[in-house]
Amino acid sequence: MTTLDNPGTPFAVLDTTRLERNIARLRDHLGSLGVPLRLHVKTSKSVEVANRVHGSSGGPVTVSTLAEAEHFADAGYRDILYAVGIDPHKLPRVAALIDRGVTVTVLLDSVAQAHALRRFAQEEGVAVSALIEVDCDGHRGGVAPDDPALIDIGKVLADRGQLAGVLTHAGESYFACTADALRLAARAERDVAVAAAEALRAEGLPCPVVSAGSTPTAHAATDLTGVTEVRAGNYVFFDLVMAGVGVCAIDDIALSVVVTVIGHQPAKGWILTDGGWMATSRDRGTAVQAVDQGYGLVADLTGNLIPGLVMTGASQEHGILAVRTGPVADIPLGTRLRILPNHACATAAQYSRYHVVASAAAATEVAAIWPRHNGW
Amino acid sequence: MTTLDNPGTPFAVLDTTRLERNIARLRDHLGSLGVPLRLHVKTSKSVEVANRVHGSSGGPVTVSTLAEAEHFADAGYRDILYAVGIDPHKLPRVAALIDRGVTVTVLLDSVAQAHALRRFAQEEGVAVSALIEVDCDGHRGGVAPDDPALIDIGKVLADRGQLAGVLTHAGESYFACTADALRLAARAERDVAVAAAEALRAEGLPCPVVSAGSTPTAHAATDLTGVTEVRAGNYVFFDLVMAGVGVCAIDDIALSVVVTVIGHQPAKGWILTDGGWMATSRDRGTAVQAVDQGYGLVADLTGNLIPGLVMTGASQEHGILAVRTGPVADIPLGTRLRILPNHACATAAQYSRYHVVASAAAATEVAAIWPRHNGW
Repeated sequence: MTTLDNPGTPFAVLDTTRLERNIARLRDHLGSLGVPLRLHVKTSKSVEVANRVHGSSGGPVTVSTLAEAEHFADAGYRDILYAVGIDPHKLPRVAALIDRGVTVTVLLDSVAQAHALRRFAQEEGVAVSALIEVDCDGHRGGVAPDDPALIDIGKVLADRGQLAGVLTHAGESYFACTADALRLAARAERDVAVAAAEALRAEGLPCPVVSAGSTPTAHAATDLTGVTEVRAGNYVFFDLVMAGVGVCAIDDIALSVVVTVIGHQPAKGWILTDGGWMATSRDRGTAVQAVDQGYGLVADLTGNLIPGLVMTGASQEHGILAVRTGPVADIPLGTRLRILPNHACATAAQYSRYHVVASAAAATEVAAIWPRHNGW
Repeated sequence: MTTLDNPGTPFAVLDTTRLERNIARLRDHLGSLGVPLRLHVKTSKSVEVANRVHGSSGGPVTVSTLAEAEHFADAGYRDILYAVGIDPHKLPRVAALIDRGVTVTVLLDSVAQAHALRRFAQEEGVAVSALIEVDCDGHRGGVAPDDPALIDIGKVLADRGQLAGVLTHAGESYFACTADALRLAARAERDVAVAAAEALRAEGLPCPVVSAGSTPTAHAATDLTGVTEVRAGNYVFFDLVMAGVGVCAIDDIALSVVVTVIGHQPAKGWILTDGGWMATSRDRGTAVQAVDQGYGLVADLTGNLIPGLVMTGASQEHGILAVRTGPVADIPLGTRLRILPNHACATAAQYSRYHVVASAAAATEVAAIWPRHNGW
């Protein structure tokens, strides 16, 4: 039997007890709102995780890279949204997936991109469908729902039946800090998506898909009338940023990194570990929150939080742990600890696989190794 | 012929014209000081890069993971220092390398670790040699050169001939901001290493190796009397943090990331790209320097800096570029750009390979693909 005491540190641990709970929670919530989930797989990049969400049905997924799209297509997934604005040089890879019988929808927010898609359909004979990205909070890309460009793009896409609908993402909800702010973000996200869809339909254009979502807004939404699918990905793992936003409890965080204590600097109250920023990533998302959790909170090997202990510093392969206040923690050389991440998407990306445990059954027994698929 | 216009973006580019210049510069400097280099391969994790430094000789290297040690051993390197404090669970992998004829030296800073090494030698019959880590600037681990623990550790290691010497690393030199501060850091690093070696020798203990170094201090040192080897790694690539410290010019930076423009938000002056923090890493090392370079500076595809343009924001697969001041840059959809990294070690770690160009010959012709070896 392999336990978390065996592999060389650092390595990533995934607790399926917490994973299943997180999956069930959003499934129940969206079920009560009557809207299906299009899982975003950019967080886990794991077919095994997606299978826990979708069962063996290979349900709809969102990807952040074409490498993810190809990996999930290889595993039998047949309904894939590539949710990063498309550049024409990526269309041959999209077309190759479509040729294999996979429905791949792309994203764009300009007339020029729509023309490129139409030109590709004319020249290559593959009509790639697209969602039009709509901006609901100034976070990133997208056209405003009342921007005339929305209709212009829709007309170019509709010309060859390539208009699949609209998409919006409330990226600013990651910076919400009250339940009210989250509800407002969720309502704005829904309202903008639906308004854009209605603007297209008012012009006689089709808009079957109205896609909205982010982990915070997916959980905070109370009415998704008019939305046809919700995207969320981070919630399968959750992390300290999501706990700071109030979307989860720290005990819900399913991903952690196992490190070993390799030294002490008692005069400074430092415990040194073999997990630096290569093990945790450089993500310090909680630095802008009410409580800065450093590079992460610290739990023992069974997953129980060690109160007050924080990973305060990191170089490439060294971590520094220290207590916020009070006496220095007495943790001997060789002790294995778990670091809870600021941002699960970034921390998981440092690894090519997960060591899987089920805390409800046996907190440190490694039940499986699940690969993840990095790169582009 | 493959050029930087061909691969799907984002991808990492390594300019061997700059690489060779950076390598020659430190080789010349250390040659003038009469001290050999023990290349740190944690930045490039590339045998091809190390071969440019050491020729076909397979000279001495420093590694940050045992995965690097095994990879370089496979490539014929026979003198490897693993410069992260050793935990006993890693000794079997070290012993396996020694059994293959590789000299592997480990690092420690406590009597307990020295006892563990001695016990391993007694029980397994493999005497792993170690350097004692000495603290020169309070950056991380190590004992002070006048700490009695130094002698205690030395005696335990010497008992079975496992005392190889001392090592120090001026990690705080990354935060120096004047040439004087760098020279002082280099002098302190050398002085502390030599003082520790002399303290051991005064007790009749052997100290053949006196290892010092970091990219800033290796370049700033003017006298390394008593030091037997210098470690540096970042300098092969350099980055914006090193430029901010004043160790290199921005034109020396050999690593960059190619991204494609996928959108615009003209009202905000934003140019959106398909290179987010997954492409650059979350490292924002310049945020604490006099000039914050955001997630990186921006060059055209041939490597010429675009003045004033900065990558100001990042989500997982989206980058936001904006000019610091002045009119919005007019860069069309589909344009490929290069992002210069804050921290080459962190940015390179996001990739499994480098697209190699030689800017002196042809700035965008891909001359080779060099793999890198990530993980632990």
